[in-house]
Amino acid sequence: MAGRPRSQEADTAILTAALDLLIEAGAEQTSIEQVARRAGVTRATVYRRYADKTALLVRALEWANHDNDPAFAGWRDVGHMLGDWAAHLAVPRNRRLLRRVYAARDDYPALTMTYRSVSGGRRAAMVRETLVRARDLGQLPAEVDLDVLQEMLTGAVLNHLGSHPDDEDAEKIKAYFMAVMRQVGHRPAVMTV
Amino acid sequence: MAGRPRSQEADTAILTAALDLLIEAGAEQTSIEQVARRAGVTRATVYRRYADKTALLVRALEWANHDNDPAFAGWRDVGHMLGDWAAHLAVPRNRRLLRRVYAARDDYPALTMTYRSVSGGRRAAMVRETLVRARDLGQLPAEVDLDVLQEMLTGAVLNHLGSHPDDEDAEKIKAYFMAVMRQVGHRPAVMTV
Repeated sequence: MAGRPRSQEADTAILTAALDLLIEAGAEQTSIEQVARRAGVTRATVYRRYADKTALLVRALEWANHDNDPAFAGWRDVGHMLGDWAAHLAVPRNRRLLRRVYAARDDYPALTMTYRSVSGGRRAAMVRETLVRARDLGQLPAEVDLDVLQEMLTGAVLNHLGSHPDDEDAEKIKAYFMAVMRQVGHRPAVMTV
Repeated sequence: MAGRPRSQEADTAILTAALDLLIEAGAEQTSIEQVARRAGVTRATVYRRYADKTALLVRALEWANHDNDPAFAGWRDVGHMLGDWAAHLAVPRNRRLLRRVYAARDDYPALTMTYRSVSGGRRAAMVRETLVRARDLGQLPAEVDLDVLQEMLTGAVLNHLGSHPDDEDAEKIKAYFMAVMRQVGHRPAVMTV
C-alpha cells in the first residue's frame, strides 16, 4: 500500500463510492457531493477527474465491467461467452448494478445514452463475432437473424435479472442461457478428447 | 358527470394519481399522502380503500392493465397476442409504467412480489394457452420448450422497453416480436380467404 501513489488511491476510492451509491440509491439519487464524502476526498478532487456526474458514473460502470478490459480479446465460443455472462450474473452486486442502469432510462437518461455510446459498440461487436463464428461452424441455423438473436440475448439477461432470484448460481444461469440458445437451434460442438 | 356516484369519482381520482406518481417518481418515492393530495381527497379516504401503499399500487397496476379485464378470454393466435402487446407498448405511458414495476424490485420489492402473485398467474396462463395452441397446430416446432419460450417473450418485452425508442409504432413493435418468434421456428398459418 505504501508504495502506491496517492492519486491512484483516490481514483479507486472515488469509483468505488460512485458504484456503491449507484447500486444503493440509483443514478438520480447519487450526487458528486455524496461520492466525495464517501470516498473521503474533496469535491474538487472529484471534479478534477470528471466534468460531471454522468461522466463519473459512466467511468464507474466501465471500471466495474470486466468486458471492457482492453486486454480481453473475445470468447472461444457461445458456451464460453454465456458461461462468462452467467459468472457475472451470479454476483448479486452486479445484478443490482445492471438493474440500476436499466432503470436510469427514466430517472437519468443521460447515463443510459452515454453508457450505450461509449461501451455498447465494442461489447456488441464481440458478441456478434461469437455468434457469426457459431453460425459459420454450423452450430446455429444458417437462416438465423443475428440482429434479432443479439436482442434476444439482451432480453434473456433482463428477464433473468427481473424474474430469477438473486442467489442463483452460475451453473444454473448458464443452463438458462443455453436453453434459450437451444430454442433458436443452437447445437454446440461435441467435445473432442 | 352529475349522475356518477361520488365514491366512484374518488376511486378513479385515487387510482389515476397513484399511477401518475408511480410513473413519474417510482414506487419508493410515492406516498399515500401525495396520492391523496393529487387526487383531491383526504388520506382517510385513501386508507378506507387500501390498507397500505403496496395494496394501492398493486390495484392501480391491475386497473391500468387491460389484460386483467375479467371479460378478456384470451387471444385467437400468437399474432393476435403479439399485436395486442405491441399496441400496449406503443403507448409511452405504458412503457414507463412497466419500467417502473421492473425497477421496483430494488427500491420497493413488496410491489414486485405482490404484483407477481396477484396478476402473474392468470396472464401467464393465457400466454401459455396461446403458445400450446400454436404448437398443437404445427405453427411452432414440437420440441419447443414452452417454459423457456415464455421467459424469452418476457425478455423480448424488457429488451424493447430498454433499447427501443419510446415512440416506435405498434406495427413496428409487432414486427419485432414476430421476428423473435420466427427465430424459434414460429410459422404462422397462411391467411385463408
